[in-house]
Amino acid sequence: MLRGQRNTITDVLGVKVGHVTLEQVLPNGDSVCTGVTAILPHSGNVFEQKVPAASFVLNGFGKTAGLIQIEELGVIESPIMLTNTFSVGAVLEGTLAYMLDENHSIGDSTSSLNVVVGECNDSYLNSMRLMKVRPNHAIEAIQNADSTIEQGAVGAGKGMICFGMKGGIGSSSRLVQKDDVCFTVGVLTLTNFGKAGECRIDEWLNQNDFEVTGSILQSEADNLKPDGSVIIIVATDAPVNERQLKRLAKRASIGLGRTGTHIHNGSGDIIIAFSNGFTIPHESTDMTNAYELLRDDHPIMNDLFQAVIEATEEAVYQSMIHAETTLGRMDRVVNSWMNHKHTR
Amino acid sequence: MLRGQRNTITDVLGVKVGHVTLEQVLPNGDSVCTGVTAILPHSGNVFEQKVPAASFVLNGFGKTAGLIQIEELGVIESPIMLTNTFSVGAVLEGTLAYMLDENHSIGDSTSSLNVVVGECNDSYLNSMRLMKVRPNHAIEAIQNADSTIEQGAVGAGKGMICFGMKGGIGSSSRLVQKDDVCFTVGVLTLTNFGKAGECRIDEWLNQNDFEVTGSILQSEADNLKPDGSVIIIVATDAPVNERQLKRLAKRASIGLGRTGTHIHNGSGDIIIAFSNGFTIPHESTDMTNAYELLRDDHPIMNDLFQAVIEATEEAVYQSMIHAETTLGRMDRVVNSWMNHKHTR
Amino acid sequence: MLRGQRNTITDVLGVKVGHVTLEQVLPNGDSVCTGVTAILPHSGNVFEQKVPAASFVLNGFGKTAGLIQIEELGVIESPIMLTNTFSVGAVLEGTLAYMLDENHSIGDSTSSLNVVVGECNDSYLNSMRLMKVRPNHAIEAIQNADSTIEQGAVGAGKGMICFGMKGGIGSSSRLVQKDDVCFTVGVLTLTNFGKAGECRIDEWLNQNDFEVTGSILQSEADNLKPDGSVIIIVATDAPVNERQLKRLAKRASIGLGRTGTHIHNGSGDIIIAFSNGFTIPHESTDMTNAYELLRDDHPIMNDLFQAVIEATEEAVYQSMIHAETTLGRMDRVVNSWMNHKHTR
Amino acid sequence: MLRGQRNTITDVLGVKVGHVTLEQVLPNGDSVCTGVTAILPHSGNVFEQKVPAASFVLNGFGKTAGLIQIEELGVIESPIMLTNTFSVGAVLEGTLAYMLDENHSIGDSTSSLNVVVGECNDSYLNSMRLMKVRPNHAIEAIQNADSTIEQGAVGAGKGMICFGMKGGIGSSSRLVQKDDVCFTVGVLTLTNFGKAGECRIDEWLNQNDFEVTGSILQSEADNLKPDGSVIIIVATDAPVNERQLKRLAKRASIGLGRTGTHIHNGSGDIIIAFSNGFTIPHESTDMTNAYELLRDDHPIMNDLFQAVIEATEEAVYQSMIHAETTLGRMDRVVNSWMNHKHTR
Repeated sequence: MLRGQRNTITDVLGVKVGHVTLEQVLPNGDSVCTGVTAILPHSGNVFEQKVPAASFVLNGFGKTAGLIQIEELGVIESPIMLTNTFSVGAVLEGTLAYMLDENHSIGDSTSSLNVVVGECNDSYLNSMRLMKVRPNHAIEAIQNADSTIEQGAVGAGKGMICFGMKGGIGSSSRLVQKDDVCFTVGVLTLTNFGKAGECRIDEWLNQNDFEVTGSILQSEADNLKPDGSVIIIVATDAPVNERQLKRLAKRASIGLGRTGTHIHNGSGDIIIAFSNGFTIPHESTDMTNAYELLRDDHPIMNDLFQAVIEATEEAVYQSMIHAETTLGRMDRVVNSWMNHKHTR
Repeated sequence: MLRGQRNTITDVLGVKVGHVTLEQVLPNGDSVCTGVTAILPHSGNVFEQKVPAASFVLNGFGKTAGLIQIEELGVIESPIMLTNTFSVGAVLEGTLAYMLDENHSIGDSTSSLNVVVGECNDSYLNSMRLMKVRPNHAIEAIQNADSTIEQGAVGAGKGMICFGMKGGIGSSSRLVQKDDVCFTVGVLTLTNFGKAGECRIDEWLNQNDFEVTGSILQSEADNLKPDGSVIIIVATDAPVNERQLKRLAKRASIGLGRTGTHIHNGSGDIIIAFSNGFTIPHESTDMTNAYELLRDDHPIMNDLFQAVIEATEEAVYQSMIHAETTLGRMDRVVNSWMNHKHTR
Repeated sequence: MLRGQRNTITDVLGVKVGHVTLEQVLPNGDSVCTGVTAILPHSGNVFEQKVPAASFVLNGFGKTAGLIQIEELGVIESPIMLTNTFSVGAVLEGTLAYMLDENHSIGDSTSSLNVVVGECNDSYLNSMRLMKVRPNHAIEAIQNADSTIEQGAVGAGKGMICFGMKGGIGSSSRLVQKDDVCFTVGVLTLTNFGKAGECRIDEWLNQNDFEVTGSILQSEADNLKPDGSVIIIVATDAPVNERQLKRLAKRASIGLGRTGTHIHNGSGDIIIAFSNGFTIPHESTDMTNAYELLRDDHPIMNDLFQAVIEATEEAVYQSMIHAETTLGRMDRVVNSWMNHKHTR
Repeated sequence: MLRGQRNTITDVLGVKVGHVTLEQVLPNGDSVCTGVTAILPHSGNVFEQKVPAASFVLNGFGKTAGLIQIEELGVIESPIMLTNTFSVGAVLEGTLAYMLDENHSIGDSTSSLNVVVGECNDSYLNSMRLMKVRPNHAIEAIQNADSTIEQGAVGAGKGMICFGMKGGIGSSSRLVQKDDVCFTVGVLTLTNFGKAGECRIDEWLNQNDFEVTGSILQSEADNLKPDGSVIIIVATDAPVNERQLKRLAKRASIGLGRTGTHIHNGSGDIIIAFSNGFTIPHESTDMTNAYELLRDDHPIMNDLFQAVIEATEEAVYQSMIHAETTLGRMDRVVNSWMNHKHTR
């Protein structure tokens, strides 16, 4: 399928992504090697104009916050935040503070707010126990959001490891075209999973006419336990509701599986899908909201499924292609995929 | 059914409960009227010896953290924390800090930690936007844990409202006896739900031989939107696994329904159930763990169901019976149930 | 809340209910004492015009067919059928045959059909192993459908037992009125659950100004194992989607709990909810369907919740109030609730 | 990973599979081209000795019966049956009859029985509306069960289509070895899904050292709507419980995804997993059952995940490799994969 112009999640009009990256060598072998990434579902006030959403938990060894309310109400009403496992609390607090500042009625004259925070464990490189991510980092990540995305070892991806090589933030997009209609599917992944040697990136590059200069080198990272995780954010502008978005979220797991992982026991593999093809107002004097929703049996639905699968697979690979070799705590090094290719 | 000695969740041997209550009148009509409550599943190190657990989301308009991993792995490995909606982040962080201090390998040489935090919205009385709960309050609540429990307007329950009257923390227990076997079921509720006039406490008191001195007075609280929530913690020492604990959790919703509520749209009604009848070691050189699990068709299972229902219903009422009239922000007052009884 | 004109599920315009009752004394102590009940969601062709739907499994010790597709697609496309546990196959087949006859393209030029069949175990009275319900009985039940309903020991309810007394089919309805809008909620239950002595019908009758002439008599039925089930069908004409219907379905469990049952281990307690306030065409040349859906935060939503709870509780009692004393296999007798009232 | 001796699901000791194939050309262009397949979880009486089990619904456009009770009680107590969509009723009835004959107390002095029946829509080749599968065919399939398996266009697979070519029954197995322990994972698939041209069998054959003689030929089947389904049965002798089996079931979806399908809208993609490493007695005088369960963090768990993924992918391909070109109704022909390879 055709890719969008940027081949990132921000090809879905209105979606923006921002990072804060923390990097610091500390005494005693500690290192700060982590960050925060914010995904804004649309360019307006997400609390005032909520987006339909759903999640799918492929493997729940994870601490993602906010999924319960998505399931009940079918909407997301905050930026979607990504960070390391021990910083969910700080990022929750910072995102909340940002939203309270933007919306004076929350927790006062109107209801409370559901913040969504996904996480992976970056403790191989990052001294995660130090909890160096603070609430203001979440605010900065939101403020940094743009339609041009940095990928690789950046933001929440700074300390992540994918298939024993450097992973992090990766993104891709696909266009679904039928007659005179065109919808976009964009995927962003925070990759921190997989065992060295299982990765199918070489085959994929071959099939997709990328130039391949070598096969994957088995490195020191081989002995890492495949206990990481992956958070997958699926965005679209197609007019699909919460039930249909759960169908899309499930397809992301198929794309993930094609990268070669076996969805290990210790991996928190969680997918969150939303559409900004329409929004649901927080308050209204009307009794009902009006919707125009894609029919499940329309051929575009199958195309959306395929787009999610393809973009998810590629987003994982893009996280590896973009990620630089990274040094972390205890003098640990995780090589970039490019290094693996060239050092053999 | 017979009650346990204390008629609280701590009748389940090893379970302890601790509170931190925050109360302060600030300028400009603001008030701090909130807190934190910690439930310790057993008297040992919960990370090292995890307890089987499950959850049930009756109405997911809530922000409880930690349920995904409970569902995947079937265990709880941290204290269960309760607080207000906007303090989930701070309490996550504090509880994590406490556990990291107790377990030096977490996030370093072993896996990460799943912290469970439930919440209700106390913004009618508490200036929740000020986020006055800090991480250290969570640590203190854990340190305060004891087998003797304070109930009512205390800890996380400080600012909560139940059926238009003062609610908060309530607890009750039941004994399940068959032949020479005796199991205990204990329930603790954080009550912040219900519409004035729907409450069935009077009927219940009559049927349970409590003395009733008046009927419920409809007060200024009548106009409160029934947008609160309730968190229900079910503990037992019966040997039941994660699947069976989900069955118990579902029964708690039946007990809740008997209090008269209609499980309103804006209510996050969430149940977490665990057993400390056995534990699962965090690490082991063994390939397998051994279990002795109650048969689903044994009559004790139905008795456990009944015990959960009865103790849940009573725990809600106990939260009202114990709660004092409380003043909060903007000079708001929420009368205790006793006041309602006597001021008519 | 106000009841509808008939106080049955057929107060929801277009809903019809039909029964086939089988009753025969056979040699060797066997008896046929069972039947089939059909609920038609609207007066048109349900395959061509599907209704939004959802289910909730309160206790899954049951064999209801068809729920998977309801969950995936959010619609019901056939009559909802009720029968005994061992006749699900025959009723599936009969209903399918009926629908194939009505729709020549099913399984030929268009997709297949999802038939929904709920069941309870009537083997105390009915020689269920004989499987005397045949496919044509399902067809007859559909053909018998009318807006006037028989209740009690009729159709699928013929051999059912509720709280140790005669149960079966019961129904009730409530009106939800706000400003100039009026929606109807109707509930039909197939009751076959509960332990003698737990039933709260007397209290309910008192509170609802019914005349009570005695308390429930503990009878020979006391020793019945509470291993039955209950199927609850919730219908409404309010414009709610599949997610919102699941919320309604969950509330039915609250109404059920108020009758006094403890949702026993062996009980298959399953709720199916649908709306005929709008329909979804099977085929369309359009890419999208248009919807007008009730806002979750509109006060009517809470009223619908209350309506479901009240109508479910009453529908259970109506099944007992209508059911006649019934003789079954091995000369077994199950007394009607009225008998219990008068023979003491 | 190593394959088992037979490379079929019956490498899991005690598992047996039986088929009944129906094939008949009728007047008017109709054809009977369908059947029934039975999978026996162990060699004893499955009602008396139940096996732990779980299911996962990847895409719920399907009519599989029996999943609700698996979810609630975590066991399977009958053979697992496969057939076409319109024969679920007949197969339910036949399997029930078989089990009643084997177990005289079912539905009399003990509880009822949960029969599991999966289905795919074979209406392209089979005149499914004729409902030619009768209850006795289910009984025969059970009686035919053996540890040697026929694959391809046989039993329930007779009329199925996979990626536009002939599919049906396929199976594969993997051995999980660690130290002196060896567990087996076996998978059986009923394949009826996928769009022509998406299939990745060629790549897989190359990577697995099978000889490939040509690439897939696009045939008349290209225009088939990808509305089929796939049922995946995962068997193991590893000591895993219902929660862990759900984890295995989810991994099967990863293996399925690797075959190239996009999990189309109209596909009922359902996975059922069981272990016969231990059994749970139907009745017992004991209050508890004893279990020895694999630790989730033991390396064998990840190996089991990998085994499920590999065996699922291969089982799909084996269904195609074994399936013969098949003629069905309206003179339709579906070519075998081998034909596709050789006719270009």
